[in-house]
Amino acid sequence: MSGLKFLEVSPRDGLQNEKKILSLEDKTALIIKLAQTGLKRIELGSFVSPKWIPQMKDSKELVQKILKLQNEKQINSQIEFSVLIPNQKGLNFALSSGIKEISIFLSSTDSFSKKNINTCRQESYKKYQNICKKAHKENLKIRAYLSVCFDCPYEGKVPQKEVIKWVQKIQELGVYEISISDTTGKARAEEIESLFEQLFVYVPKEKLACHFHNVHGTALTNVWSAYKMGVMSFDGSVGGLGGCPYSKVPSGNIPTESLIYLLKGAEDPMIKKLLSIGSWLEKKLEKKLSSPLLNSPYYNS
Amino acid sequence: MSGLKFLEVSPRDGLQNEKKILSLEDKTALIIKLAQTGLKRIELGSFVSPKWIPQMKDSKELVQKILKLQNEKQINSQIEFSVLIPNQKGLNFALSSGIKEISIFLSSTDSFSKKNINTCRQESYKKYQNICKKAHKENLKIRAYLSVCFDCPYEGKVPQKEVIKWVQKIQELGVYEISISDTTGKARAEEIESLFEQLFVYVPKEKLACHFHNVHGTALTNVWSAYKMGVMSFDGSVGGLGGCPYSKVPSGNIPTESLIYLLKGAEDPMIKKLLSIGSWLEKKLEKKLSSPLLNSPYYNS
Repeated sequence: MSGLKFLEVSPRDGLQNEKKILSLEDKTALIIKLAQTGLKRIELGSFVSPKWIPQMKDSKELVQKILKLQNEKQINSQIEFSVLIPNQKGLNFALSSGIKEISIFLSSTDSFSKKNINTCRQESYKKYQNICKKAHKENLKIRAYLSVCFDCPYEGKVPQKEVIKWVQKIQELGVYEISISDTTGKARAEEIESLFEQLFVYVPKEKLACHFHNVHGTALTNVWSAYKMGVMSFDGSVGGLGGCPYSKVPSGNIPTESLIYLLKGAEDPMIKKLLSIGSWLEKKLEKKLSSPLLNSPYYNS
Repeated sequence: MSGLKFLEVSPRDGLQNEKKILSLEDKTALIIKLAQTGLKRIELGSFVSPKWIPQMKDSKELVQKILKLQNEKQINSQIEFSVLIPNQKGLNFALSSGIKEISIFLSSTDSFSKKNINTCRQESYKKYQNICKKAHKENLKIRAYLSVCFDCPYEGKVPQKEVIKWVQKIQELGVYEISISDTTGKARAEEIESLFEQLFVYVPKEKLACHFHNVHGTALTNVWSAYKMGVMSFDGSVGGLGGCPYSKVPSGNIPTESLIYLLKGAEDPMIKKLLSIGSWLEKKLEKKLSSPLLNSPYYNS
C-alpha cells in the first residue's frame, strides 16, 4: 500500500511502562494477535537488565517462542521481528536467540542519555560502533531510535543542529532506518516540517521514521505533517499503550489504529482487529487505554 | 498575528451539552475570564427554547449583562460577541438584546436537519432567508455553521457536492463566514484537503472557517490540514468542553488552547490563561475535561 511502513512497538515501548507484568503466555498471545492484523514489523521486547525494566525480563524466551512459531508457520513468515538492545550483552542475547533484526537507541542530548542509560552520547555511540560492526558481520538488520529530537525534559528545546549531527553519525553505523523520536510529545507540526526539511539534506527520506509520543494531543498532527513532507515509516502502539519511563511526563504512544485511520482510511480492516487487541489488553492490564478509536461508537456497535 | 482568527464557542457549543447547569453568575464569570485571554470573538449562547437546551435558558440575560459590562469598559471593547439563533423569535431576542452578530446553522443532510431542528434543509434555508434579510437591515453581522460536512450519523458519508451546494446557498444569504463542521469528528486529513480544494473554487478562503469535533482524536490534524490549505479561522472551546447533543456520539470540541499551541506556539501566553479557565470549569462542572494540555506537566509545574 503506497510504500507506507508501520512498526508496532507495543510489546516493547508499550509494555515497558506498565506496572502490571504480563505473563510470557500473554505476551505470546499479544504477538500472535498482532501478527494476524496484517502488521509487517513488530518490536518484540528489549534485552535489557530486568533490574532496569522488569516487564522485559522474559524478552529472550519470548523471542525464541515467537521465532519457533514462525518457523512452524503458525506466524506469517513475512513478518519481521526485532528487539531493542542496549549493549554487547544484549547483542549476544540477540545472536543466540536467532532474531534477524536489532534496534539501538541514542539521544540528541547528553542529559537525557545520562538519565536514560547513565552514559553520555559519545560513549553510547562508541559502544554501538562495536555492536553494529559485529551485528553487520552476523547479517543482522539494524534500526536506530534517536530520542528527544525536539524537546528534552532536562535541557528544554533541542537545537536542530544537534539532531542533524547525531542522525548523520547514526547513519554511519549502517542502520537501515532512523526513527526520529519526540520523546516528550512536545513537538509542533511546524517544528516537524522544519526539522525534516533539514534532515532530508543529509539523509534519504526512506531512511527516516517517526516515533511520536502523544502527551500534548499533537502526535497524530505531527505524523500527518511528516507524511506530507514525504516520510512513510511510522511507529505505533496498539491502543496507544505505553511511553517512555524516563521522560518525566506520562507520554503515550500513538495508537497504531489511529495511524491506520489517518493514513489508510477509516474502513481499513486492520482497525477493527487492532481495536479488539486493545480491548483484550485493557482486560489483561486492568486499565483503560487512551486510544480515541477504542472509545468511538463507530467501531463499537 | 498573521491573519489567524479564533472563535470561542465554549459558552454555547461547549456548555449546551453539559448536564450541570451553570448559574448566570458563573457564565458571566466565564465570559469575563475568556475576554481576558486575548480572544477576540466569543459566541455567548443561543436563543433557543429552554425546552430544547435548558443550559441556554438565560442566554438573553447573559448577553445583556456582558454587553453592559463591555459598555462600561469592564470588558475589552474590541471583542466581538455573537449568539446562535434558530428562528425569527431568536432574531427578535437578538435585536432586543443589542448584540451585533448572530450565527445561523444549517445541515448538509436532510436527516441531520430533521433530527436537529425538525425541519428539512430547504425549509430551514427559507426560514433563514427571511431572518438574514431582516438581520441585514438591522446591520447585524451574520455567521453560518454548516453541520455534518463529512459524515452524518444518519446518512453516513456526505457527498461533497451536497456540501458545496449548501455552502453556495449559504453564501447567498450574505454571511461573512461559513464554518465547515465535522459534527461527528469522523473526517480525515485527506478528506479535509479534498473538500476545501473544492470549496475554494466557489468561496474565498477568508470566508471559510473550521468547526471540527474530536471524537476520533483527529480534529487537530484536520485543523492543521485546513490551515496548510490556507484556512485561517478556527472554532475552539476552552478545555475541549462540549460537543453536539444530536450527533449520537460523544463528540468533544477542539480545546482552544490546543489550537493556540498548534498554530501560535507552545509559549503563547494565551495558553496558560486558557488552562486556568479549564481548571476553573472543571471545578464548576464537577468533571474532568479532556484537554491534553490541561493534563500536561509542562503547564502544571
